[in-house]
Order: sequence, then structure tokens, then C-alpha cells
Amino acid sequence: MRSLTIAELNLGDSAEFRKTISESDVYLFAGITGDLNPVHVDEEFAKTTPFGARVAHGPLTFALCAGLLGTELPGVGTIAVTNEVTYEAPVYIGDTIAVRIEVAALDAERNRATFAVTWGNQDGKQVASGTMVVKPPKVAVRV
Amino acid sequence: MRSLTIAELNLGDSAEFRKTISESDVYLFAGITGDLNPVHVDEEFAKTTPFGARVAHGPLTFALCAGLLGTELPGVGTIAVTNEVTYEAPVYIGDTIAVRIEVAALDAERNRATFAVTWGNQDGKQVASGTMVVKPPKVAVRV
Amino acid sequence: MRSLTIAELNLGDSAEFRKTISESDVYLFAGITGDLNPVHVDEEFAKTTPFGARVAHGPLTFALCAGLLGTELPGVGTIAVTNEVTYEAPVYIGDTIAVRIEVAALDAERNRATFAVTWGNQDGKQVASGTMVVKPPKVAVRV
Amino acid sequence: MRSLTIAELNLGDSAEFRKTISESDVYLFAGITGDLNPVHVDEEFAKTTPFGARVAHGPLTFALCAGLLGTELPGVGTIAVTNEVTYEAPVYIGDTIAVRIEVAALDAERNRATFAVTWGNQDGKQVASGTMVVKPPKVAVRV
Repeated sequence: MRSLTIAELNLGDSAEFRKTISESDVYLFAGITGDLNPVHVDEEFAKTTPFGARVAHGPLTFALCAGLLGTELPGVGTIAVTNEVTYEAPVYIGDTIAVRIEVAALDAERNRATFAVTWGNQDGKQVASGTMVVKPPKVAVRV
Repeated sequence: MRSLTIAELNLGDSAEFRKTISESDVYLFAGITGDLNPVHVDEEFAKTTPFGARVAHGPLTFALCAGLLGTELPGVGTIAVTNEVTYEAPVYIGDTIAVRIEVAALDAERNRATFAVTWGNQDGKQVASGTMVVKPPKVAVRV
Repeated sequence: MRSLTIAELNLGDSAEFRKTISESDVYLFAGITGDLNPVHVDEEFAKTTPFGARVAHGPLTFALCAGLLGTELPGVGTIAVTNEVTYEAPVYIGDTIAVRIEVAALDAERNRATFAVTWGNQDGKQVASGTMVVKPPKVAVRV
Repeated sequence: MRSLTIAELNLGDSAEFRKTISESDVYLFAGITGDLNPVHVDEEFAKTTPFGARVAHGPLTFALCAGLLGTELPGVGTIAVTNEVTYEAPVYIGDTIAVRIEVAALDAERNRATFAVTWGNQDGKQVASGTMVVKPPKVAVRV
């Protein structure tokens, strides 16, 4: 467990996480959130949509950035303030999604760090982008 | 399965979903997203933070609105465009969270509906708020 | 529910359990243990390794023997003392793993039973082997 | 994603991971492994045993070390060779378990690193100990 304070962050610092989205990820996410939209869990319905197959929940893709912020950069003790994300392309079951966070702005006075976040798939296509504003911990954790 | 087109939506239309957040919700969410931040899964660590106990992932709370948008209002066929959320208070394991979505703006020309979203707990305290911009389906679904 | 005391066990007594390892088994195991090693959950990464595809966690394969010991042989009331396992070949998502336990040594004085354990896949290839030392129940359970 | 080769490891290098074991962890582990031993999933039975309450599976506790080895020390690309663990005290649902791995021996010629592993609970009591022998990656990963 470790973390950085806002004074230890630099513009351009980045971290990345990657995961293949499984069918069970999508199904458990549906159960946890109550979002059983047929486009996620009804293959026959999904075939009739422009997507052509079941897609992952947008917030599932989005959430892949949270572990990076909370355990790597800035790390443990970080508190989410606000986030904004735009969904640009579908994520299918079986896609491998890479999420990348990068320090885009620092406001030491208010203790706010803004991260630019992008999500891409195994074909290099960007599927979403956004910004996360967080409060880094006041005291860095070194365990 | 049903849905409304943008022409069938009215400012102020609303829907609500409520769920008690279980420990298993938080633990499964950690596994799906890779976010094993100790504030979510390490009670001893969480006790040492201002929260005082394990809290749910912000994106888990956030995701509770997605089912409403995708299955009730506007409903099946809706596509998420962008969203923004601000986290205002912690959500603890065992809290019952009510999410409410309300039509706040309609842009028929671009087929965009903006929803104001609020999340509150069992004590009536607002824990998050935000906006979701979606594309309602061009053709309403009535199944 | 049943069990045998050490006096009721014989050298060579054996039991077997078999299961096809699903993607959800591996993904849930990753979340439970916090082991999101990309070789388990990132297909694109796994392709670049000697394995060539995502593999199951070694401790998942290993754990398949525990139910046999705790519910069949010696059965309910058995307490694990120590175990040792060697991993010999990868287990892929979709492999059907058979685990076999066999009584290899009995120490009635100290109430210790040693089991030789082997794990094999659907092609008859041994993927792991080891030994489990357990304390059978002092009083047999017959429910 | 990062890792160290055997040449980059030093005796005494260590890493730690901590998690509160939830009821859902134990129940999912039971389902994945088929170990529905009543001492894990039958509270009424467990009350009649020396443990007095449902306990976590030994291999679940054991598996908490795997993520450390495979993602932190030595890190990505590490391959498990053999492991040995002794169970010393019960782990109850709700216990917070800290697992610590430490480099105890290095055999550069055979590319084998031996880690001493200990598991302890929130009261500082050691619940298990063992050794893990792994092959660090031949080429360090820096992603």
C-alpha cells in the first residue's frame, strides 16, 4: 500500500490497467447494479440492435479506472470528487480493455488532481474517454 | 421491455430504483473492476480513515442509475453518451441507496436527453449527484 | 455428512472429484484473492507468454482437493494440517480437471493421515501433484 | 505491470497484502472449488465444532499470497513451482488477514526464488505459514 500527495504528483504521470471483459463480469455487474438491460444479457435481443451482440455496461468500463486511482496513482487514501466520461464505441464480451490515467492538472491549493482517462480495446480503438478529479491523500501512505 | 422516443419524453419525467448495498456487492465489484483499494476490502485499514469503515466503490453507486435509463426511462434501446457525477458522502456496506433520474433537458434535433440524477441513503442524505446524457431509441420498443 | 476416523482409514483408500474450470471460476477467484495477474485476466497479455492463453490460478487447481478431504475422505470434521503441491503444467479456462486423493501414510498415534494428491486434465496429462496431511475427526460423523 | 528478474531480487525483499474475508468470499470459494464442507457453509454445524463458527477454507487463506507473487514481487511473468503451507489457527468470516512474503533464498543458476510466507489476523495472531518456490521471469516486464 502506497500513495503520493499532490506535491509528489507531476503533470504527465501515468498508470495503466488491462483486463479481458468476461461474460461473468457483465452478468455479475448486471446483478449488482440491477441493470438487466437486454443489450447486456439477452443475446437474441442484442443481435437485433446496431451492436449485433451483447455489450458490457458503460459504467463497468468506466469503473476499471478506479483501482488505478485508488491503489497506484495517487494511491491509497485518494478520494474521488467528480468524474465525467464519454462513451465512444461499444465494448463486447471478450474484449480486452486497457485503461490509462494521466495527470492533466494539479491544484495544490485546493488539493485537487485532475486525471485524463482513456479506454481502448485490443484493436487499439478508443472506446471511452473522460476526466477524474480526485483528492490525493494529505499524508502519503507507505506500508 | 419498453421504451420511449425523445418525442415521448417530458421535462420532469422521473424514475427511481433502490437497493441495499451488500458486502458481496462491494466484494464482487472489487473483483470485476480490479479495485481492491483497502478502503473497500480491508476493515482494519478503513477504521483508520475518516470513513471509519469499509465503503462502497463510487462507481458502484453511480452504476445504480444505468438500469433505470436502460430499462425504464427512456428504456430499452437507450444509448449512453456521457455522464458526470460528483461524490458527496460515503456509502457504507448495508446502506440502502435510492437513485432518482429526472428529465432535465431535451434536444430533439440531436436526439439527446439529459437526466439529472441524485443518489441518497436511508437517512435521506444525498450521497452523490450528476447528469446523464443519453440517446433515446429512434423507434420505441413495446414488447 | 459422514466421516472416518484414522482407525477406519486404509492405505490406498481413494476418492476423486472432477470439474471443468470456467472463465467465471477464474475471474471470481481473481476477485476473492486479489490476484489479477494478467496471465489470468488479460487475454492479450497471456497470448504473449509461453502459455499462449489465460490460465487458471495454481491455488484454484490446488483447492479442488479440499472438498474431497473435508466431505468424503476422511470427511466432515477433518482438519488440514499442512500441504505441499508442485505445479507441473498449465490449466486453461475450459480444461476439465480431475483431482484424486489417496491415503499414503497413517500415523494413528499422532492422528495424522497423509494423502497423495494428483491433478490431471481431460487429455490425461498430470498438471500438479502433492501431499496433504490432515487430522481425521476423533469421532466419526454419521448424519 | 512490472516484474523483477532473479538478479534483481535480494534476500529480505518483502511485500504485503491485506483483506477482510467476507462471507461472500467463503461462499464463492465453496462454489468454485466444490468444497461445501459444513464447517464453511453450515453455521449450525460449525457451532458444534471446536471452531464454534464457520471458518474460511485453508486454501482461500493460502491463495492470498498468489497475487503478491504474480503482480508485485517478483511480479508479472512469475511461474509457481511448488508451495508448502501449514495451517496454525482458524480464519473466521470477518477476520482481516495480512499476508507477507519475503525472499528467503535465491538460486540464480536454476532461476528459483524461495519466499517465506506468513499469514496473520487482525489480532496479530499468525494463522498460517509456508514457503513458495517460484521462477521469476527471465526478462523483467516494464509496462
